[in-house]
Amino acid sequence: MQAELQDQLETVNSELVEMTRLVGSAMNRATQSLLDADLTMAESVIAADARIDTLASDIEERCFDLISDGQPTEADLRIIIGGLRIAASLERMGDLAEHVAKQARLRYPRLSIPQELRGTFAEMGGLAEAIVSKTGAVIETQDVSLTADIARHDEQVDRLHRELFTIVLSKSWTHGVEAAIDVTLLSRYYERYADHAVSVTRRVVNIVTGAPYVGVSL
Amino acid sequence: MQAELQDQLETVNSELVEMTRLVGSAMNRATQSLLDADLTMAESVIAADARIDTLASDIEERCFDLISDGQPTEADLRIIIGGLRIAASLERMGDLAEHVAKQARLRYPRLSIPQELRGTFAEMGGLAEAIVSKTGAVIETQDVSLTADIARHDEQVDRLHRELFTIVLSKSWTHGVEAAIDVTLLSRYYERYADHAVSVTRRVVNIVTGAPYVGVSL
Repeated sequence: MQAELQDQLETVNSELVEMTRLVGSAMNRATQSLLDADLTMAESVIAADARIDTLASDIEERCFDLISDGQPTEADLRIIIGGLRIAASLERMGDLAEHVAKQARLRYPRLSIPQELRGTFAEMGGLAEAIVSKTGAVIETQDVSLTADIARHDEQVDRLHRELFTIVLSKSWTHGVEAAIDVTLLSRYYERYADHAVSVTRRVVNIVTGAPYVGVSL
Repeated sequence: MQAELQDQLETVNSELVEMTRLVGSAMNRATQSLLDADLTMAESVIAADARIDTLASDIEERCFDLISDGQPTEADLRIIIGGLRIAASLERMGDLAEHVAKQARLRYPRLSIPQELRGTFAEMGGLAEAIVSKTGAVIETQDVSLTADIARHDEQVDRLHRELFTIVLSKSWTHGVEAAIDVTLLSRYYERYADHAVSVTRRVVNIVTGAPYVGVSL
């Protein structure tokens, strides 16, 4: 019974890692659709979100069954409940990638963002990619030393988020209100995506070390 | 043992109802601070969020103990896991109320929103109040017939959210980019607050009826 439970826990862990891959790929492709006004790419991100949602439901159901049938120890239980929380955060990260893709689709065939901000959004996309890859590694390896890296990337995303506010509010902004709102919302999607990843890594730290979970204000 | 568990489940339920009161009061006062540029009120909302966070942690811990010590049945387990999810959603609703209050504080002593939109935000605040009160009632009474009302209010919030977009993007908008962004973000906070409440009521439906939980895209 206990060996079976451990197998199941490993399956949950693999599925969570798979989710980080899917939401990472979704955000990468969403960023590309945004930078290139690529409608096909945007549509593919929007269509793929259902798979992420399904995987999250599957994990939820598996965790539920493990608790009710598996006679988990307290340590197992910490992993299972943590897994439920992590799946929920990853599912929301998928939604945020979908929001970016929908924004790209909304303005197609125009770009959603002014040419001179493409570099900043490319940078945000790159940071999102780094964050989610390392989050996947933290889940897979339980090596929490990577969390410092992730926190640093998250600070960079926050800095870019603040910079974008300054830019759209400056006197030299010539793109009007609609573009300012698009940039602000898009920037917020990346910022929240990164926050959720930080929240996931804190859940893993909580599982691995038993240290209390410290929430992220999302 | 089973009687003890039922007592504890009732305690969790009361605490969740208490959370709806706290996050309802937080959003009410946040709205008032926004409409009146009332710094003291805004500060009180921001200071009170810690209590909401603590209550959420307490519930989480209690649920964890119940699973590990209480030998819950599958039906109990559904309630406990649902309770964990509900607490997380309510905690985020508290954060969103805090975001509104912080926005009011940021522009103090000016109003964050143009005079002519105060009515719309007052309406959003009223809908948020109705939604969260009814959400509290659904948790307390398990009477899921109120969910139709809540869904209707949520649609009204969505409609106001779309209207505000139209207004800030119209040619007659004279308040500039900063005010447009403030209005957009504020409107999004109310819209997400309402979405989280809908998500909570769907969790209750899932607990009460056993019908599958249908996610809300947040």
